[in-house]
Amino acid sequence: MAKDSPQLSDVLRCPQPPVDITTIDTGATPQAPGDKEKTLKEFEPMAEELSQLQETLFARGRSNPEAARRILVILQGLDTAGKGGVVRHVFGLVDPQGIHHHSFKAPTDEELKHDFLWRVRKALPEPGMIGVFDRSHYEDVLVARVDNLVEEDVWKERYDLINEFELGLAADGYKIIKCFLHISSDTQKERLQARLDNPAKYWKYDPSDLDARSKWPDYTDAYNDVLNKCNPDVAPWYIIPSDHKWYRNWAVGRILLETMRSMKLTWPAPDVDVEKEKERLNNAS
Amino acid sequence: MAKDSPQLSDVLRCPQPPVDITTIDTGATPQAPGDKEKTLKEFEPMAEELSQLQETLFARGRSNPEAARRILVILQGLDTAGKGGVVRHVFGLVDPQGIHHHSFKAPTDEELKHDFLWRVRKALPEPGMIGVFDRSHYEDVLVARVDNLVEEDVWKERYDLINEFELGLAADGYKIIKCFLHISSDTQKERLQARLDNPAKYWKYDPSDLDARSKWPDYTDAYNDVLNKCNPDVAPWYIIPSDHKWYRNWAVGRILLETMRSMKLTWPAPDVDVEKEKERLNNAS
Repeated sequence: MAKDSPQLSDVLRCPQPPVDITTIDTGATPQAPGDKEKTLKEFEPMAEELSQLQETLFARGRSNPEAARRILVILQGLDTAGKGGVVRHVFGLVDPQGIHHHSFKAPTDEELKHDFLWRVRKALPEPGMIGVFDRSHYEDVLVARVDNLVEEDVWKERYDLINEFELGLAADGYKIIKCFLHISSDTQKERLQARLDNPAKYWKYDPSDLDARSKWPDYTDAYNDVLNKCNPDVAPWYIIPSDHKWYRNWAVGRILLETMRSMKLTWPAPDVDVEKEKERLNNAS
Repeated sequence: MAKDSPQLSDVLRCPQPPVDITTIDTGATPQAPGDKEKTLKEFEPMAEELSQLQETLFARGRSNPEAARRILVILQGLDTAGKGGVVRHVFGLVDPQGIHHHSFKAPTDEELKHDFLWRVRKALPEPGMIGVFDRSHYEDVLVARVDNLVEEDVWKERYDLINEFELGLAADGYKIIKCFLHISSDTQKERLQARLDNPAKYWKYDPSDLDARSKWPDYTDAYNDVLNKCNPDVAPWYIIPSDHKWYRNWAVGRILLETMRSMKLTWPAPDVDVEKEKERLNNAS
């Protein structure tokens, strides 16, 4: 990769409308450092730099929570797209203390009593943390729409509510990264098959995934609307070609890295008079 | 290490009363695979096995939450003993999805309105998870006692309450591992010094650590009481010599590994008729 290549976050940035995911190659590997083997070798240096940046972010959160930034990574994609794999292989590269992971399931009775963003607000990361959402409020315009869980006029007004919500987070100092893990129908079939072929993967198989699979065109429409309606610069979508797991993981890690670099994080200044404390320590037993 | 060596969890298991931590070597490295370099090489195979075991535990939690086990690791130790380091280097070895990390700070106003175990109960891991407590309810018989935050008769009755609480957790299927990270006074001084010498570590320096340091004998008494009074077989303490960070991390990882092996976790049985689902998948588009 030449030094003057564009950033991966520019290359995978979801373009302005109209976007149609059926025209985007799920098996592409733009800017990959090489084949699978070569790309996997890049994880070690990436982990080192990410760890350093994460610790700086965390330190700033501890030192001055009011002023500290936080990162929110939203992972979306159809079943088997690899949300869990990204959590394991990308966010597993950094200190678990700095990661606030939340997995959104079907809403509970209590959650349904509140507006759809209530449970999302509760799950937001604290200052200095990297929040990772496995699914998110986008399910409220995806499964909620496809399965008619709410009336059309209800889900239709949610795009604006989501934009408003995310703009508010950005104004509060959240750095938002939204990743759509994009797979082909054939890839999903293979992965579901693999779950049924391997006893160590049975637990990942959910028969309702097959029902969702039968609604592929509806989900495609719903994702296209999400990408076309909720994609401001302060809360950008990235479309991650995800048929190759090694590429998917590398790409999400790389976008996180580029984003954290762009934040120009520095170690916080000391809260104490360092020389005086050194003296106190030396005088102590 | 010979094949018939005792388990590390037997070697580092806190003995029955009377225990006096001042007689236990903080710089020892029992059963280490070798020197620092050799021991660090053991982390990769340890990570692989831990990951596999953790995924099995997690799978069982997803498949059958009512029957699933959970693990609770409690990390205690004086300032700079390395609680954070253990989280990063040991629990960072496995999937962040399977780790529920909670760091206990000074209680908030709301927490103080409730009994001391209230906030601990709220932070317990869900089925299939590995909970990691950085500090815990033991602070309520450590700092609370040393700094006279409550009356003597209040903290004195807490040992029984803690035992009752932990026995209840064990009966509910929690596997409890309590690690006391044991350092020398000289090691603490060096590490505090290092925090004042390196701008990347200023944020870890808290001037109140020096106040706590001046109460070293009181903390020693308080820890001795904890180890002597709250050490049942279902919620055992391990005393981890922690002057060497590489040994400390390896030892905690190794005890976790031995404990998880002893749980004889197997992949959950499928919830569905696998052959029928294969047919459904093949018939789907």
